[in-house]
Amino acid sequence: MSFNEFPSRLLENAVNEFASLPGVGRKTAFRLVMNLLKRDAEDVKRFGETITRLHDEVHYCKICNSISDTEICTICSDEKRDRSVICVVENIQDVMAIENTRQYKGLYHVLGGIISPIDGIGPSDLKIDNLEEKIITGSIREIIFALSTTMEGDTTNFYLYKKLGKYNIAITTLARGVAIGDELEYTDEITLGRAINNRNPYQQ
Amino acid sequence: MSFNEFPSRLLENAVNEFASLPGVGRKTAFRLVMNLLKRDAEDVKRFGETITRLHDEVHYCKICNSISDTEICTICSDEKRDRSVICVVENIQDVMAIENTRQYKGLYHVLGGIISPIDGIGPSDLKIDNLEEKIITGSIREIIFALSTTMEGDTTNFYLYKKLGKYNIAITTLARGVAIGDELEYTDEITLGRAINNRNPYQQ
Repeated sequence: MSFNEFPSRLLENAVNEFASLPGVGRKTAFRLVMNLLKRDAEDVKRFGETITRLHDEVHYCKICNSISDTEICTICSDEKRDRSVICVVENIQDVMAIENTRQYKGLYHVLGGIISPIDGIGPSDLKIDNLEEKIITGSIREIIFALSTTMEGDTTNFYLYKKLGKYNIAITTLARGVAIGDELEYTDEITLGRAINNRNPYQQ
Repeated sequence: MSFNEFPSRLLENAVNEFASLPGVGRKTAFRLVMNLLKRDAEDVKRFGETITRLHDEVHYCKICNSISDTEICTICSDEKRDRSVICVVENIQDVMAIENTRQYKGLYHVLGGIISPIDGIGPSDLKIDNLEEKIITGSIREIIFALSTTMEGDTTNFYLYKKLGKYNIAITTLARGVAIGDELEYTDEITLGRAINNRNPYQQ
């Protein structure tokens, strides 16, 4: 089935909009639109309005750059969080992933990306300046680099370290090692090699 | 990564809307919303408005029940089509598939579904009454059953035949046989068996 001729412009527009999403082909887009047409009108209207309002109403926290319903996000405005530690992450998904562990009580700084020359993303595309400002003006004790363990992540770590290393603060990264639940024989060599070199005292 | 706690209600609502689509999980929904947030505001607003308008502005052709921008669709209002032949299909996708072959010059009748007791869809859920009306009031010469070759399709064919067989019109179905490009050894037995029984004179 090809999709050269649509019987309705409106239908064609809707399919085109869905097909513009990443990983959604024209066949899937058509299926999604047909699903919307089968649903209650009110339901679909609310769907459309949620998307329409997305850009107008979304806020980015003035302090950490994370998405928020308010000017300052709930984490940055939480008095109980440790304001002397900042965890640097690539995006809001990472904030949510770390929050879900319930292990971290400090603040975040969302870079909004990662240095990737192949994608044309350089340091100036990231929110780095106001991170340095926080160190200068605040009483920061530690910065945690929590970026992906990829070449882009390492490049960004290196760049940040060159910029922030001169300040009198601890700079740490997430522990690397064998993931919990992983079988040794399926762990890649680099991870396993590092895990042996950085071995820890056994705890009962 | 779980998605228990969203930093923004707006974000959560948008993810919920996308996750309500068939075949879209919460992870994919989140990825789609993050993609929308990275795009131009105008772009995303247009996307939302297209969805909002969908139900209000979509028309179903009064004659064939297909989707249309006008009260009568372009096919039904085309003077050049053969008004004595009606091809009965399950849905608008089937109309588009047959139209794309450019082999058919008659009209269509979209049932809007197929009889499927397991899904709770009976004859009364389909647009069958106005098909019978067309036969009674019009000068129909032939009705083509172009439904899926599934049990539901066969059931619907049988029901339609019981209802329409009494009128003095030809009732036909699509030819069944080995698909063009298919290798014989991978063709299922039922199709192959029918294809042998219904063999045609060889044409050079």
